[in-house]
Amino acid sequence: MSDQTSNPYEGRFTKPVPSINLLTNYDDFTVFEHSHRDVGSDFTPRTRPGESPLSVQSVDMCLQINKSNHITSAYNNQNLVVRRGLEFIMKVTFNRPLTQGDDFQVEFLIGSDPSPITDTLLVVTFGSRPGGPWSGRIVETLGQTLTLGITPTPNAIVGKFRVYVATVQPGGLQRTQRNQTTDLYLLFNAWNKDDAVFYPDEVGRKEYVLNDHGLIRQGSFDSMTERSWDYGQFERGILDACIYILDASKMPIADRGDIIKMVRMGSAMINAQDDNGVVVGNWSGNFSGGKAPASWTGSTAILLQYASTQTPVCYGQCWVFAGVFNTFMRCLGIPARVITNFNSAHDNNGSIVTNLVFYPDGSLSTADSKDSIWNFHCWNEAYMTRADLPPGLGGWQVVDSTPQETSGGYYRCGPASVAAIKQGLLCHPFDLNFCFAEVNSVVISWTINRYKTLTETSVDKNMVGKGLFTKAMGNTTFDNIMSTYKYPKGSPQDLAAMALAQEYVSGKKPPAPPTALLSISISANPVQLGQDVNLVVNFTNQSEVPTTVKAVLSGIVIFYTGVPAAPFKNEDFTVTVPAKQTQSVPFKIAAQQYMANRGSLLNLSFTVGGQSDGQTVNATKVVSLQPPKLTVMVTGQPQLQNQMFVTVSFTNPLNFTLQNVTVSMSGSGLIDPKTRSYSVIAPLTTITWKESFVPRLDGLRNITATLDCSSLRGVTGFAAVNITNA
Amino acid sequence: MSDQTSNPYEGRFTKPVPSINLLTNYDDFTVFEHSHRDVGSDFTPRTRPGESPLSVQSVDMCLQINKSNHITSAYNNQNLVVRRGLEFIMKVTFNRPLTQGDDFQVEFLIGSDPSPITDTLLVVTFGSRPGGPWSGRIVETLGQTLTLGITPTPNAIVGKFRVYVATVQPGGLQRTQRNQTTDLYLLFNAWNKDDAVFYPDEVGRKEYVLNDHGLIRQGSFDSMTERSWDYGQFERGILDACIYILDASKMPIADRGDIIKMVRMGSAMINAQDDNGVVVGNWSGNFSGGKAPASWTGSTAILLQYASTQTPVCYGQCWVFAGVFNTFMRCLGIPARVITNFNSAHDNNGSIVTNLVFYPDGSLSTADSKDSIWNFHCWNEAYMTRADLPPGLGGWQVVDSTPQETSGGYYRCGPASVAAIKQGLLCHPFDLNFCFAEVNSVVISWTINRYKTLTETSVDKNMVGKGLFTKAMGNTTFDNIMSTYKYPKGSPQDLAAMALAQEYVSGKKPPAPPTALLSISISANPVQLGQDVNLVVNFTNQSEVPTTVKAVLSGIVIFYTGVPAAPFKNEDFTVTVPAKQTQSVPFKIAAQQYMANRGSLLNLSFTVGGQSDGQTVNATKVVSLQPPKLTVMVTGQPQLQNQMFVTVSFTNPLNFTLQNVTVSMSGSGLIDPKTRSYSVIAPLTTITWKESFVPRLDGLRNITATLDCSSLRGVTGFAAVNITNA
Repeated sequence: MSDQTSNPYEGRFTKPVPSINLLTNYDDFTVFEHSHRDVGSDFTPRTRPGESPLSVQSVDMCLQINKSNHITSAYNNQNLVVRRGLEFIMKVTFNRPLTQGDDFQVEFLIGSDPSPITDTLLVVTFGSRPGGPWSGRIVETLGQTLTLGITPTPNAIVGKFRVYVATVQPGGLQRTQRNQTTDLYLLFNAWNKDDAVFYPDEVGRKEYVLNDHGLIRQGSFDSMTERSWDYGQFERGILDACIYILDASKMPIADRGDIIKMVRMGSAMINAQDDNGVVVGNWSGNFSGGKAPASWTGSTAILLQYASTQTPVCYGQCWVFAGVFNTFMRCLGIPARVITNFNSAHDNNGSIVTNLVFYPDGSLSTADSKDSIWNFHCWNEAYMTRADLPPGLGGWQVVDSTPQETSGGYYRCGPASVAAIKQGLLCHPFDLNFCFAEVNSVVISWTINRYKTLTETSVDKNMVGKGLFTKAMGNTTFDNIMSTYKYPKGSPQDLAAMALAQEYVSGKKPPAPPTALLSISISANPVQLGQDVNLVVNFTNQSEVPTTVKAVLSGIVIFYTGVPAAPFKNEDFTVTVPAKQTQSVPFKIAAQQYMANRGSLLNLSFTVGGQSDGQTVNATKVVSLQPPKLTVMVTGQPQLQNQMFVTVSFTNPLNFTLQNVTVSMSGSGLIDPKTRSYSVIAPLTTITWKESFVPRLDGLRNITATLDCSSLRGVTGFAAVNITNA
Repeated sequence: MSDQTSNPYEGRFTKPVPSINLLTNYDDFTVFEHSHRDVGSDFTPRTRPGESPLSVQSVDMCLQINKSNHITSAYNNQNLVVRRGLEFIMKVTFNRPLTQGDDFQVEFLIGSDPSPITDTLLVVTFGSRPGGPWSGRIVETLGQTLTLGITPTPNAIVGKFRVYVATVQPGGLQRTQRNQTTDLYLLFNAWNKDDAVFYPDEVGRKEYVLNDHGLIRQGSFDSMTERSWDYGQFERGILDACIYILDASKMPIADRGDIIKMVRMGSAMINAQDDNGVVVGNWSGNFSGGKAPASWTGSTAILLQYASTQTPVCYGQCWVFAGVFNTFMRCLGIPARVITNFNSAHDNNGSIVTNLVFYPDGSLSTADSKDSIWNFHCWNEAYMTRADLPPGLGGWQVVDSTPQETSGGYYRCGPASVAAIKQGLLCHPFDLNFCFAEVNSVVISWTINRYKTLTETSVDKNMVGKGLFTKAMGNTTFDNIMSTYKYPKGSPQDLAAMALAQEYVSGKKPPAPPTALLSISISANPVQLGQDVNLVVNFTNQSEVPTTVKAVLSGIVIFYTGVPAAPFKNEDFTVTVPAKQTQSVPFKIAAQQYMANRGSLLNLSFTVGGQSDGQTVNATKVVSLQPPKLTVMVTGQPQLQNQMFVTVSFTNPLNFTLQNVTVSMSGSGLIDPKTRSYSVIAPLTTITWKESFVPRLDGLRNITATLDCSSLRGVTGFAAVNITNA
């Protein structure tokens, strides 16, 4: 003990917890480890007199057969990649055939301070001498070459292991030298029923673990769009990038076999907020210093840039976070998918109620409205057992890496059991209140008066969570998975779940809705960007007497997060509605009205506020403008190792010139991410970009392209091609 | 909308979330607020013709009667301090008596962006016009002076509110000027049955909310010591310091009525780790740059230093964190107490198993042992309902601010329901695994061999959680509250709770203990610092044949955290134990053997490792050395406002000179923290320090003193005195 120490934790921890997996050099064992007092002194010579000591000549990790057996051939990686819980083989060639008395072991090490007590040092033995917990067997002996079968436990740490073979010598252990080519990547295993990520269906495993392309819904519930996303989890450098993310998070190596901790850390790290993670969020219209969120074709370019610069990548919005997080999970072997929720409540305080505050004239008080409703929001689901929860709450779990609200101090969310959301069981970890609100929140509209007191004007139980979509397994359609999140609205089970959830929430309880005799609704058809908007406003009078409504129609360009950007219309009108009838008022909003104020945004919010006999009512409709499409065409013989071509083309349908346009493309297994710039694209002008490529992977594959400039975002397209292995 | 914005979150949040309560100047309302379009235009003149407009002449917060009714008279604060959920009164004097048509309201504001939707702006009305949610009534009208009764909701935000009175004028609201003397502190209310911190018993409320002095157990289970702690929650500046802690944490103002979020944030902020919190942990023997943990007499000096310097205070160990956290909670009105657990497991990975790894010779492998056993560990309990959990899990909750393991990325712990710990219900938030392990962890000893593989040598189910002590209510004894944390060891309920807990843990399951035919135990008597240690080592042989044991006794000075500091003894011996018998071997360890290596530490760990017929056994005994005592004596007439004296004296009983000695004292309500230095105290020399003081508070009060130098720590004493209000 010393009073001169400078480490105030000396009396507690002797070393920092190991949290770096990707160093090139570790301070591992010496090649010859002498027996010493600490570890006993009973190393006895085991070699028969006259025989040379046993030593290792070579180690072969048998990449081809192992990768095929472990369904990891697609990984573009020089090292062996295997899934835990399943045997892989190694061929070890010794200096001579083994004889009785010879003894050896294979050692797997991960991180800077490997120890058997944390399962970061695994000693695999092949006889009666105990080792473990990974098991070993001699599969075949051929002269001096042994084929060894090694089975990692199904809860083993996931990451990159170093491999040594040690022979027992008189007085110590003789080890192989450190050899980076024998390093081994170990993944989660959705095929193994003892693995916490076991997925019980092969079609699902192919989609949720192996598919490196996906489709993501966007827009608004009445006018949905879709976007192709290139996950790229098998591309060169991506597996290392995913492990680098864990290293950058300083997540202890010893925790990296735990699926719950792993996805929770992933949800924190995919956003750059507060932890120097992968993607920087930006919801403004100004994306200088980076790429616009809508311009990314997939995750590959983002992850490679993050790993090589070790600096957050600019910029993303929710589908970018979800796309990159999906790559991270599928790359590590975790079944994962991207979900889009229309409309998604953003409940800032865990009250599971969304409060919107309006002035008496019907305009939103942004100072008082802390909650918001996003047109759509994307998150991920990861599939796993939840040993930490009561039975029945495993399966799909919400994990969300978009920085919305801090969860325990960091921007992260989940894993939150979808089954628990459905039951209203908010009493378990993690972040169930927030996720429950996203799909179930009641939306209460309040009017704030001149005294700064609030009056409740309406309660909407149907605005939020109208539909939850994810790409279907095995094809390019979408499934609406709303029934996994909630019971039919108004059913006894739904009422029970809502009541239980409310019990677990300490915030304000939703009061009974006021009885509204006058109500307003707005309908609109889908609108192409640059076309006029046709709205119909419907006033319904349920009273026994006619009523005259003084109304205002306002139109605002909004962000997809519901936040107002620029008003472009404000029109007073009066309508008289007969008793027990609905009166409809049509409006035509000319394209130039919104185009002048739009910037690059694609969502228009129309609000009608009305006053009649002291009653205040309002209704809001979001119209998503449909951007033009990119055309992507693939030509040439679709065969592995054969030269093929992709052509991306676009005709400017707008009546103004696009400037400083960026076109991007990528296609996992086919073509690396590429970008091209066009300084101007005049109205009705067509651009065409052709590239050649040679397919690396077979099967149904896709090329995704985007076009982006400051006045036009969200232009995408993709083409599918079936590559044969002929 | 602008493409020139520099805020990438423009499309989401319009402002940062308010999190500062203690600014002097806020950008509040203007004194005269004109009606404008946003808030409607129906301000109508309400004054009768010829009458002057209503205005406010003065506001009296009625400190004496309110503080007495709210049991807050002890707070040494110029402003009103009240508890939520209970009416307080205000006297408002207008320019003239009110007449019909006059209208006014009282407004309470907290934080920088007050809004009624977040309950940070409360409008209290006194007639039919709706306000809320705080209620108001006119208690009495006396000419132009109104006595108003105002009742904050029992879930109101806790902190410092600004108060305005506004009268309704033609065309707007006329407000009083900002006046810091009418600022109001609102606390949690353990007396209100609708408050989440309601404590149902008056004796308990007096102890857990109102007592500003406490006793904390330390040492080891067989040789417990106790320490007096001066909580000081009512001392001048402490309430502001506690609110400053919340401001420093950036905790949103709107969350500060939520007891769960409040104590969880407190557990993070009381330690300086990772959030610039209050106390810097230091478990080494080197406390340069600060005060030694053992030298503090209480929380007052620490909290005042933190608030004035806005910098973490050096240094603390577990009882310091617990003492300061207790002050924080009691000061804000939360029932809280300090618990000491003997022996406390520190399970580093949530496995609820403590793994200790030994070399074959019986010495601890610090490289492989990641877990540890602390002789004792102090934490806090806070009393509250847990609406977020199923019924039955409210009541006392573990909250721990000692930085042990990160919980969700920060050093913090809890609130963890004590009832859930008892049932093994680890499926709820927060940190139940860690707390369950502290009192229930099985301790598994492993031997690591030369191949780096592990063999289990023993399983101890009784080492951890032998006793949990807290100061009893209303007197200076201790209660053992172990039965609130666990069922009797081995009972059916205990087995069920352990099994359920194990199910919720994904780590390794504890294997069946090996059948041990040979076992060792060690016993020792309490030892005064500087005296010899008498040990007895007992070998029990349960086999049918005699056995000879080759044994080693090693003695190590350890930190109270169980971490080895300096070995001082290593003695081989052999003992033969007859069949079915116990053989005892006595040892006498001379004081000079451990004194030379001790530094300032007070714990000796004796380990006996033995080998017999291939069986390895070991046992460990911790002996806590009892430090000498300080004498504290109070003289003079024990009466409010009367001069009294305190005398602290100490005689050095050791055979060496103490150098650079610091003596400290403090006594809440009696005397502010004071410190005095002595450059040398020779053996058998006595020092005496006398101070005068004038009591501020009556009742049973205490003065705590400590003596500290680098070779002698943990010397404490206290005196109690009953001050009368005569």
